[in-house]
Amino acid sequence: MATDPTRVAIVGAGTIGLSFAALHLTKDPHCEVIIHDTRPDLQEYVSSHLPGYLLDVDREACTRRLSFASEVEEAVKEASIVQEQGPENASFKIKIWPEIEQYAPKDALFWSSTSGIPASEQSKGMKDKSRLVVVHPYNPPHIMPLLEVVRSPDTSDDVVERTLAFWRRLGRTPVVVQKECTGFVANRLAFALFREACSLVTQGVVGVEDLDEIVRASMGPRWTVAGPFKAYHAGGGEGGLKSFMEKIGGTVQDCWEASDADVQKGNIRVGEDWQEEVCRQTQKAYCVTDTAERDQKTRKVLNAVKE
Amino acid sequence: MATDPTRVAIVGAGTIGLSFAALHLTKDPHCEVIIHDTRPDLQEYVSSHLPGYLLDVDREACTRRLSFASEVEEAVKEASIVQEQGPENASFKIKIWPEIEQYAPKDALFWSSTSGIPASEQSKGMKDKSRLVVVHPYNPPHIMPLLEVVRSPDTSDDVVERTLAFWRRLGRTPVVVQKECTGFVANRLAFALFREACSLVTQGVVGVEDLDEIVRASMGPRWTVAGPFKAYHAGGGEGGLKSFMEKIGGTVQDCWEASDADVQKGNIRVGEDWQEEVCRQTQKAYCVTDTAERDQKTRKVLNAVKE
Repeated sequence: MATDPTRVAIVGAGTIGLSFAALHLTKDPHCEVIIHDTRPDLQEYVSSHLPGYLLDVDREACTRRLSFASEVEEAVKEASIVQEQGPENASFKIKIWPEIEQYAPKDALFWSSTSGIPASEQSKGMKDKSRLVVVHPYNPPHIMPLLEVVRSPDTSDDVVERTLAFWRRLGRTPVVVQKECTGFVANRLAFALFREACSLVTQGVVGVEDLDEIVRASMGPRWTVAGPFKAYHAGGGEGGLKSFMEKIGGTVQDCWEASDADVQKGNIRVGEDWQEEVCRQTQKAYCVTDTAERDQKTRKVLNAVKE
Repeated sequence: MATDPTRVAIVGAGTIGLSFAALHLTKDPHCEVIIHDTRPDLQEYVSSHLPGYLLDVDREACTRRLSFASEVEEAVKEASIVQEQGPENASFKIKIWPEIEQYAPKDALFWSSTSGIPASEQSKGMKDKSRLVVVHPYNPPHIMPLLEVVRSPDTSDDVVERTLAFWRRLGRTPVVVQKECTGFVANRLAFALFREACSLVTQGVVGVEDLDEIVRASMGPRWTVAGPFKAYHAGGGEGGLKSFMEKIGGTVQDCWEASDADVQKGNIRVGEDWQEEVCRQTQKAYCVTDTAERDQKTRKVLNAVKE
């Protein structure tokens, strides 16, 4: 029995939108992608920017499955998935979902790529709030495997399950976030380390470039292979994490207290004085970074750990 | 002109000692390693455990360059490097360095593998405190490239420079830590993220295994390729980190504040109630972890990013 191809409506043609469009087109050789955006040069803009995201594939074959829509109705009326990455403000999102709901097929999945506006907020004007779930990527989504599936209290289990199944079929790593917390999980974790990094640089313990080198030669590769809990569980030997905390816990607590004291001392809040020196060192070290090179290396790393 | 082979005296035959011995023997085909430990079965113990650390090499050729010493004098008298990884207590280290200093050649380098006792403390009884520097590995050192070179206010520039040159010649990643802060840098950074991880699990936002999956599919590979400063610098586009902080800074600050509130709410201190549930979930998820498999995958990841 032939199944209909997946039809993805991409709402918003920014960098995330194009990256997701490329991901769908390259990972599923049958899916069709329709891009909606109100910019007048939409087709021209996508045609010139999308090829950079289409890696190791027949670009022409991919773009044959791509179309455009200037109106929401046209974009979503036959969609099996509507993926929204419009402006990052609540009022835009609260306004567009009822419109999408009105025109999209009854069983279409509704995903928002927002990095911070929860589905419970976005769905305020919807008739059926159970249909919406946040699918937050780690940039850029055509390279990085993670998708945080952040459910609202209203999101149905069926929507969550179908969302997970979809992304697993494409070889990505969807993970359910059970509560709509500030910043979701990946950014919360990364920003916690980033604050400590800013604090240590501000205290003069280490420079920006050396700190980056430390992470690249230790936690980066370690956490590519085993996450922090698994890593420390191994560190505890046969007794696991419990044993690790018994043996090393004193040092861990000392570090946490030293961190708090240093963050306090350096006044590590966004916009305070420390920021200038950290930005200056970073600019001096890296000028403009080559994300194409970064993405190519990242793919090699991801392949190495997959094998 | 023939140069004398490097002679490394390993003081303390625990897992770090054996891992370092293996690193020297496999990375430098001419170096000689002498292991000192007071355990009566030293030779037998090393012979049965060391082979597990000697990867992709002629083990017999390696062990021909290995010898043993039950006395400090014998171990260090011809050493070019003395690398200490004895018991992690200050009194042991304060006592052994003057003894090493008495017997070792005048130009031998003195390194401690301690994860927390600074050189300024360890060197208290030494005649020449400028000779000692901490060389803290990220475990296990025969796999992980990082070496934190933590200088005391007394450590000489010459000692630091020779230490860096040595490790660079062996293809490792030595990084100077300029101030002796609590926990040095790698653990401070990792424990900051770990605290946030414990806090999010305690709040019920995400489970232990899912949190590990999030890190493995996002920050792990990203930070293997580019450290946090370089990564956010790229995130800011042409304006770099400065621009990133202008655009995303509000979210960053919101996350930091939410983190502090959650850590407070969960009473995330070592030994408090939250710990039991986190350890239970970790034990359930991983039982006993296979570090050989982890190390093999880590080597693949490191090779992928090196190419």
